[in-house]
Amino acid sequence: MPIVRVHSESMHALWLEQRILRKRDDIPVPRPGPGEALVRVRLAGICGTDRELLRGYYPFLGIPGHEFVGEIAQCPKASHLGRRVVGEINLSCGYCHECLAKRKTHCLNRKVLGIRDHDGAFAEFLTLPLDNLHRIPDCVSDEQAVFTEPLAAALRIREQLAIRPADKVLVVGAGRLGQLIARVLAASGCRPSVVARHGRQRSLLEDKNIPWLDEVSVKPGRHDVVVEASGSAGGLDLALRALRPRGRLILKSTYGGETALPLSRLVVNEIELIGSRCGPFPPALRMLELGLLDPCDLIDAHYALDDFETAFNQAAQAGAMKVLLRP
Amino acid sequence: MPIVRVHSESMHALWLEQRILRKRDDIPVPRPGPGEALVRVRLAGICGTDRELLRGYYPFLGIPGHEFVGEIAQCPKASHLGRRVVGEINLSCGYCHECLAKRKTHCLNRKVLGIRDHDGAFAEFLTLPLDNLHRIPDCVSDEQAVFTEPLAAALRIREQLAIRPADKVLVVGAGRLGQLIARVLAASGCRPSVVARHGRQRSLLEDKNIPWLDEVSVKPGRHDVVVEASGSAGGLDLALRALRPRGRLILKSTYGGETALPLSRLVVNEIELIGSRCGPFPPALRMLELGLLDPCDLIDAHYALDDFETAFNQAAQAGAMKVLLRP
Repeated sequence: MPIVRVHSESMHALWLEQRILRKRDDIPVPRPGPGEALVRVRLAGICGTDRELLRGYYPFLGIPGHEFVGEIAQCPKASHLGRRVVGEINLSCGYCHECLAKRKTHCLNRKVLGIRDHDGAFAEFLTLPLDNLHRIPDCVSDEQAVFTEPLAAALRIREQLAIRPADKVLVVGAGRLGQLIARVLAASGCRPSVVARHGRQRSLLEDKNIPWLDEVSVKPGRHDVVVEASGSAGGLDLALRALRPRGRLILKSTYGGETALPLSRLVVNEIELIGSRCGPFPPALRMLELGLLDPCDLIDAHYALDDFETAFNQAAQAGAMKVLLRP
Repeated sequence: MPIVRVHSESMHALWLEQRILRKRDDIPVPRPGPGEALVRVRLAGICGTDRELLRGYYPFLGIPGHEFVGEIAQCPKASHLGRRVVGEINLSCGYCHECLAKRKTHCLNRKVLGIRDHDGAFAEFLTLPLDNLHRIPDCVSDEQAVFTEPLAAALRIREQLAIRPADKVLVVGAGRLGQLIARVLAASGCRPSVVARHGRQRSLLEDKNIPWLDEVSVKPGRHDVVVEASGSAGGLDLALRALRPRGRLILKSTYGGETALPLSRLVVNEIELIGSRCGPFPPALRMLELGLLDPCDLIDAHYALDDFETAFNQAAQAGAMKVLLRP
């Protein structure tokens, strides 16, 4: 296997153990398995899921982080060495019922980069199957490309349902993901409105000519499609109230525990509720390449791994957008 | 307006007031408004919603009953007099946002026969707009036609989503509606399995060569489409567990209050939840006319209005199917 020299046998990384995150310098550089590449991480993004890992939402032990840009440091194909890449986060087994049905992101034995059974991107190096990696077009910067994963998650909505340009669409929540969803929908010819609480969220929307409103201004029962991207019970309730009969509600956030829902209202109004998770990387990279969408204004700050505590604190602020780590 | 002589100014009817149902003989025969017909009720069916009205699920005062077969006793068109008809239960206003968007069953000002603001079918006469009435083909008996409304509700599923013949479909609940849903799906080329608890439910399914199973035999995570027709929290939980990732769950029951749902599982597994209510009458009548489906084996008993207490008690028995009232 062609090898680019890795300077040391051990590396710096953030290590999560029993809900405590700390920086370690003694983590062995991971060894790629068959069909896998070793990737040197150039840039990584902190996502809401990372903060939920810290709160114990998943029982994960190891290196978190799943939004990254890297370059291939070791892999079976010599021609791929040095390539800048982003990576899909689900590692599928290839032989389970879901893999055979071509739903690889739902693989029953899946590992998930930095989330489940596979070390993640808050480190100098990570490993991923070559099949998961996508080359970044030269004209797309690291800072743009680090948004590929959440942008793909936003695009997943457009894979799941046809939204007509004239549909009245509401996005509840104007955080990182809500902003990307609103831009993806706007790029497709829709004119979404976004429920935004914070001044920064609102000015980012204004910069893109996307109308925002506060919660009390949402017209009940009039939206064809609502995207719930707030992750809060109040946001979900608002989303349900905003929908017209036979409207469609996309659930784009994760929720802890169980949530009480007025199921009779769903039945009587014939509402559709659609869970939505990971999306397609190639269209996300294409949108960045074509300049249809530039997420760089969503970056709040860059930090070195050493400053991870400051970084995570900043990412947890109300109205915070994207905080990046540079291993 | 052409008039068939109505023998009396008052009629027999069941009257619901403060959750108490009683028979009265002093109810005035209703007067049809413009565009409405007076219908003499020949046969009426007791439905789960009727029993929920008695439990106070809706604050309804008046004559309940919404599944019926009747004949036109008075209407603007003389040629229609005496016609046997069934009737759609939603009375829409024609000018609200939902009516103008051609979602008349979701009319914001709607009255619903025997359920909301409009007296129903447990009476000698009822009124409905002519537009709501559908002529019953001569070869369809009253006993068959009284199933038009629930049969239409079952067919609504096939309006809402494409179910492929090879899809693995599960119906949870083998009561009246579950049986009709299973038959409608079987008639469309699917091979649904039905979760059935009671011996009578199971033998009815066996008669139609529809496989049944008990709850513990349901294979988790393997069904493409699940229809929840049990109306119980346990049934809903079973339905969710039975679905594969990206599977679709049709909610066909009404549920009191709020129900706790594992929303994260919906998001991670990208489940679709689809509320489903009233369906199209003409296809239901066509299925009966073509003999694609004969629901008469679902009839448990006929009763006169005087015996309504016995009738409602029988309809409330576990495993009961359809109990009819003959006003």
